[in-house]
Amino acid sequence: MHINQQRLRSDIESNAEFGAVPTEEGRGRTVLTGSEPDRRAREFFCERLRDAGLEITIDEVGNIVGRWVPESADPDAASVATGSHLDSVPEGGIFDGPLGVYAALESVRAMQDAGVEPVRPVEVVNFTEEEGQRFGGGLIGSAVAVGEMSVEEALQIEDEDGIPLGDALADIGYRGEAQLDASRWDSWIELHIEQSERLEDANVPAGVVTSIVGLSRCNVEITGEANHAGSTLMDERSDALTAASEFILDVERATNERGAVSETAVGTVGKLEVSPNAPNVIPGTVSLTIDVRDVDYDSIEYIIDEARASLAEIEDERPVETSLEHPWNRQPIEMSERCRAALHEAGEDAGLDTLDLHSGAGHDTMHIAEVTDAALLFAPSRDGISHNPLEWTDWDDCAEATRVLAGAIASLATE
Amino acid sequence: MHINQQRLRSDIESNAEFGAVPTEEGRGRTVLTGSEPDRRAREFFCERLRDAGLEITIDEVGNIVGRWVPESADPDAASVATGSHLDSVPEGGIFDGPLGVYAALESVRAMQDAGVEPVRPVEVVNFTEEEGQRFGGGLIGSAVAVGEMSVEEALQIEDEDGIPLGDALADIGYRGEAQLDASRWDSWIELHIEQSERLEDANVPAGVVTSIVGLSRCNVEITGEANHAGSTLMDERSDALTAASEFILDVERATNERGAVSETAVGTVGKLEVSPNAPNVIPGTVSLTIDVRDVDYDSIEYIIDEARASLAEIEDERPVETSLEHPWNRQPIEMSERCRAALHEAGEDAGLDTLDLHSGAGHDTMHIAEVTDAALLFAPSRDGISHNPLEWTDWDDCAEATRVLAGAIASLATE
Repeated sequence: MHINQQRLRSDIESNAEFGAVPTEEGRGRTVLTGSEPDRRAREFFCERLRDAGLEITIDEVGNIVGRWVPESADPDAASVATGSHLDSVPEGGIFDGPLGVYAALESVRAMQDAGVEPVRPVEVVNFTEEEGQRFGGGLIGSAVAVGEMSVEEALQIEDEDGIPLGDALADIGYRGEAQLDASRWDSWIELHIEQSERLEDANVPAGVVTSIVGLSRCNVEITGEANHAGSTLMDERSDALTAASEFILDVERATNERGAVSETAVGTVGKLEVSPNAPNVIPGTVSLTIDVRDVDYDSIEYIIDEARASLAEIEDERPVETSLEHPWNRQPIEMSERCRAALHEAGEDAGLDTLDLHSGAGHDTMHIAEVTDAALLFAPSRDGISHNPLEWTDWDDCAEATRVLAGAIASLATE
Repeated sequence: MHINQQRLRSDIESNAEFGAVPTEEGRGRTVLTGSEPDRRAREFFCERLRDAGLEITIDEVGNIVGRWVPESADPDAASVATGSHLDSVPEGGIFDGPLGVYAALESVRAMQDAGVEPVRPVEVVNFTEEEGQRFGGGLIGSAVAVGEMSVEEALQIEDEDGIPLGDALADIGYRGEAQLDASRWDSWIELHIEQSERLEDANVPAGVVTSIVGLSRCNVEITGEANHAGSTLMDERSDALTAASEFILDVERATNERGAVSETAVGTVGKLEVSPNAPNVIPGTVSLTIDVRDVDYDSIEYIIDEARASLAEIEDERPVETSLEHPWNRQPIEMSERCRAALHEAGEDAGLDTLDLHSGAGHDTMHIAEVTDAALLFAPSRDGISHNPLEWTDWDDCAEATRVLAGAIASLATE
C-alpha cells in the first residue's frame, strides 16, 4: 500500500499552524482544549475527514470520529479504530498527537487509493484533552469512551478559571450528542512518537509496544520548622530540605536496586516545592511528587514500599514529620497479541524493520486496551525530545510508520 | 534609672498600627520602605522625638536622627548613638526593629527623667530599609552611614516595579538633605530581639553580643537534562535534583563536621528551585542558595571549600554540570569591649542578669561596628520566632532590656 507522504505532511503542517508559537529553533504550538486553536484544529480535521468521504460524529465530550464504511464492509460489524489526539501541552511540538490522527486518516485514504476492500468499518479518532493541560489529569476523552469516567463527571471538570469542560466544548461548537463506546470496537491501534531514543538508536522506523507501564504517583510532604538560618544552631534545626534530600536519594537507590530485576523500572521526583524558600530561612516544609513506573507491577510496589520505609527512617533520625499520599495507581497493560502481530506483519510486507519495546508513557491506548484488543505503534523521535518545539520526526519516518499502521489496519479490517 | 514601661509599650503598640495586618494569632505588620505605613511610622516617630525635645535631621537616604544635647553636654563632642529600624518584612512582627528604636528614645527620656547629665550628645536613630524587602539586599541606611555604599548608589536601587529608592523616599517626604556619618559617633548600641531561644532558655532578660558572625552566600546551579519520567530509563538520566540532593547532604555533613571545632558554624540551603518542576518530567535544572555563617571565618572557608569539592565529585559521578557563584562574603565582627563592659555594668547596677552570646544575624550594627565602637544587645524572643506575627517579647522583658540599654548609654555619654 502506498502512503502519500506529501499529503500526510501537508495535513500535519497545516495543523501545526493552529496555535503556532514563535520559536528560535524547531516548531511549536499551544493547543489547549476548548481554545480557538483547538476549534480551528478540529474544524480542519473534520474538513479532511469529509474530503475522504468519512462520516463524522462528535460525542458528548468532544471526541471526533470519522467513520469509513466501504461497500465491501458490513456496517454492523465491529469497526477497526485508529487515531490519537490534536491537543498539545503549552509550547509543545507538532507531532505529539497529530501524527497519530493524520496517519490514521492517511491509512484510510491509502486503503481507498489501493482499492482495499475491508469487511469492517474503519474509524479515525481524535480524543479530547489527552494532555490534561487545561482540564484535569489528561486522557479524558478516552476515559469516557471506555466508561472509566462518566460523561457528567468529565463535563464538570473545571479549568483554573472555573470554566467547566462542558462549557468550553460548547463554546467552540464541539460538545456533541453521540455516545462513543470503545468496547464495541473490534480493535484499536494508535501511532505516536516514541519520546525516547530507542528507535533512533536502532535506526528502525517502527516500534511495536509490548506493554504499557503501570504508574503510581505519590505526594510526599516533609514538615520541619522554618527558622532563622543565622541564629539557629545545627543541632537545634528541623530542616525539611535536608530530610527531603535523603528521601530523594533513597527513592533513586531503591529504583536502581530494582533495576537488577526489571531494567524498565523508573522512579522520579520531578516536582519539589520548598517553603518559605528564602536564602536566610531554614526550610520549614517540602512538598514533592514521586512518579514510579514499570511493566512489572512488583517494581512499583517495591519502590513505594522502600519510599515509605525511607520516610519512617527519616522520621526516626531527624526531627521532622512526613506524610505520603498515593492518589494514582494504574496496573501495567499488555498490548493485544493479535494487533501486535498485524503490525509486525505489516512491517515485513512493507520491507520495514520493526522493534518490540515497552512504553513508559500511557497515551489514550492505555484506556482503550482495557475494553478491546489494542496496540500502540511508535515512530522515532529525534533525541527523544517531546513536549517541546524541538520535538521532531523526519517526514520519511512519519511515512514509514504510517505504512506499518495502514498495513495493520487493512489486515485487521479485512479479517 | 527608671524605665517607664507603659510609655515604651504605648509607643511600640502605636507603631504597630501602621501597616497592621489581620492575623488569627499574634500581631503582624507590613511596613515596606517608602510605603504609606512607612510614612506614618516615621511621622509618629518624629512626633515622639519632638515631644522629648530632640532635634530631628533626615539624611539623604531617609535615615532619621533625633539628637539630644542637654546643657551638660559639649555639642561638639562625639555623640553616643542608639537605635534600630522601623521597616518590617511582609507580615512581620511588631518588635523586630521598633523595640530598638523606641527603647533608644525611652533611654533618653529615662535619662531626662532621672536628671542624668551627659557630657556627650545622645542620638536616637531609625535606619532606612534594614530588611531589604523592597529595595536591594537590606541594611541600606547603615551602609550609607558608614560609607560602604554611596548615596547615589542607594537612591538608584529599584524595587520590582522599577521605582528607585530615591523616588519612593521623596514620595513619602523622607528624602532629606543631611549627611549622616556614623564614624563621627563615639559609640553605638542597638537593642534587638534575639530571634533565637538562648535568653529564653536561660531566663535572662539581656544578651550582650560578643561578635556578629561572618556570612557567605553562594548561588549554585546544577544542570542535567529534562526528560520524560516514563520513557527515560534510569541509566539514561541526567537528573539535576538527585545530584542536588547529594550536594545538600554534603553541605550539611561538612557543617556538622566543622561543629567539632566551632559549634556556632551553620550552613543552610534555604532556597531551591526545580525546572521544569512537573511530576512526570525529570528535573533538568536546580538552582539553590547556600548561606554559611560563623564567628570563626575559617569555618566559612572550610564549608565553602567542601561545597566546591562536593560539586566536583558530583560532576565526576553523575552526568550533570554545576556552577557555584560566591557573590556575598562578610568577615565576622567583634563587638567593642568598652560598649560590652558598659552593658554588663548597667545590668549589674540594675540587678539584672546578662549573658554573653554571639549573633547569627547581621543587623545595622554589623555596619556601624566597622567605623566606631559598637555593641548589640538582645532581648528574649519567645520560641525564637521572628519575621512572623507570632514574634513576641514580654513587656517586662522589653522594659528590662531597655533598662540595660539606658544604663549603658548613660554611662557612655557621661564618660
